[in-house]
Amino acid sequence: MARSENENRRVILAKRPTGIPGPEHFALDTQAVTPPGPGQLVVRARYWSVDPAMRGWVNTAPNYSPPVPVGDVMRAFAVGEVVESNSPAHPAGAIVTGLFGWQSHATVDAAQVDRLVEERDLPISLALGVLGLNGVTAYFGMAEICAPKAGETVVVSTGAGAVGSLAGQIARQAGARAVAVAGGAEKCALAREVFGYDAAIDYREGDVAAALAAACPDGVDGYFDNTCGPISDAVMEQLAVGARIAICGTAAISDWTPWPQGPRVQRHLLVKRARMQGFLAFDYRERFGEAIAALAESARAGRLVYREHVLAGIEAAPGAIAMLYAGENRGKLLIEVD
Amino acid sequence: MARSENENRRVILAKRPTGIPGPEHFALDTQAVTPPGPGQLVVRARYWSVDPAMRGWVNTAPNYSPPVPVGDVMRAFAVGEVVESNSPAHPAGAIVTGLFGWQSHATVDAAQVDRLVEERDLPISLALGVLGLNGVTAYFGMAEICAPKAGETVVVSTGAGAVGSLAGQIARQAGARAVAVAGGAEKCALAREVFGYDAAIDYREGDVAAALAAACPDGVDGYFDNTCGPISDAVMEQLAVGARIAICGTAAISDWTPWPQGPRVQRHLLVKRARMQGFLAFDYRERFGEAIAALAESARAGRLVYREHVLAGIEAAPGAIAMLYAGENRGKLLIEVD
Repeated sequence: MARSENENRRVILAKRPTGIPGPEHFALDTQAVTPPGPGQLVVRARYWSVDPAMRGWVNTAPNYSPPVPVGDVMRAFAVGEVVESNSPAHPAGAIVTGLFGWQSHATVDAAQVDRLVEERDLPISLALGVLGLNGVTAYFGMAEICAPKAGETVVVSTGAGAVGSLAGQIARQAGARAVAVAGGAEKCALAREVFGYDAAIDYREGDVAAALAAACPDGVDGYFDNTCGPISDAVMEQLAVGARIAICGTAAISDWTPWPQGPRVQRHLLVKRARMQGFLAFDYRERFGEAIAALAESARAGRLVYREHVLAGIEAAPGAIAMLYAGENRGKLLIEVD
Repeated sequence: MARSENENRRVILAKRPTGIPGPEHFALDTQAVTPPGPGQLVVRARYWSVDPAMRGWVNTAPNYSPPVPVGDVMRAFAVGEVVESNSPAHPAGAIVTGLFGWQSHATVDAAQVDRLVEERDLPISLALGVLGLNGVTAYFGMAEICAPKAGETVVVSTGAGAVGSLAGQIARQAGARAVAVAGGAEKCALAREVFGYDAAIDYREGDVAAALAAACPDGVDGYFDNTCGPISDAVMEQLAVGARIAICGTAAISDWTPWPQGPRVQRHLLVKRARMQGFLAFDYRERFGEAIAALAESARAGRLVYREHVLAGIEAAPGAIAMLYAGENRGKLLIEVD
């Protein structure tokens, strides 16, 4: 690496988007690395994460967290190595994850570290994917909220995605049939042949409602949703009595101003005595250890299949969110920080 | 009573409605009482119930149960006295409830009896209200699904209604603040002054969203919904993190063909990590005894306030469902069978 390790290369939110942020909303800059104060550490990023939630972070619609101010480093999850530290719990050489932002050298408080990565036998990029937020999101959304039982049928609306592909595998490990909905023949083949789904429905082809009815003859007992659009509307028509729906994301809606309309769900929930629940993996933070240990064990045993799509260099970051929303990635989307 | 006790006076579904059934959809007739076969009993109805669910029972939209066939006795809950019996568990003189229909003399199998009314010290009409389906609906929807804790705020969308007025009282017994939404100044006064709500909002007057925000400054932790319309849309904007929504009915929607649109709820559920759950009291059937014992105890102690609106005679039945949907009743709507 010929890069100066005294410079913090950053991706800044340059302009507030409405809807999906593109390259025009970001700018690159370089600043001196901020020396760590008492209790602080400097993390040299190795990988940045690209997540659907990032769209929400730059918009002003109601969200979990305040929007990223224009002019600030783009909020993002990252994994990297501690290169300088005033925190005894995070010595130099440790691998840590956290919301360190799209910057090469993040100077952060110890409390900003989400996790000290202990499974050093596995690739560190996994700490942003199957052993990171994607993993725990799939784990708690599927195992806790959809809670499939053997013989039940679950549908995952982004079945070939970074979270959805895990959710399907967790459902199948519980003995359920898993049906993926994905965009395009390639992703459907990936869902079936690589991620082990029992069936995959291409929402870009033909009648999704009819395909769902055919794939779920006894109805849908669990639905792990990342879309909140026409796919969900079709799934709601197929619910079984007692169905559980985990709302993980709303990727099918590009803009919440004005608030979009859709078929009212209440009567489906009433007639089927079904439950729809939004969740945020961070609400389960104190149980992350349990989830990550289980997922790492599955990964080591070869029972957890995953794909990564790695973009090279920080110049790839500004276009990465739009790429994710266009469905152009082929696995968990990461940026390798040069 | 000058009525012949050999005649079964019935209210028949004469024509299938779309939407709310009115007098034009029913007809009265008289038939000989059917003698009870082995294991059967004859119930002489004393009160018939008028419930929001009856609209669904005569429409062909997806529902819990198949629609009432045209020409059949209207499906309805009733309470009455056993006058002839081949069922040892239900001797003559017993008071029983069940889905006996709008007929004066129902000849039914023992299995069709929902409950043998044991609290003979209380008025038997209560078996159709606070000690019947209304009571258990409020009990399980509020105590189990909304599950309010002390200091939380719950909203009940038909706060002065037969179920809603109980739901509010159950919430207050748990230490929560209870806010009613009701139609008109009279019902709001009833909610506050008789049923003990901390606040009541008249949805026919002014800005419901603003009134909700003012009445629920810390957000809505529990929402017991009977409407599924603009009131619910306004409540969704005020959810607190971790909110629980019980879907009990959809009275604001008069017709589900075509399926109505509304603001998509998923993002509210996601951002607030909230849960929306449809329920049907009968799914808790094996726990009815627990609920009714608790409610009867509250009623005897004077801690349970209720109102009944009793229509006299079977001729009142055909117009009663429309009356209920027009909000013209002043308490649990019943028909006293002459």
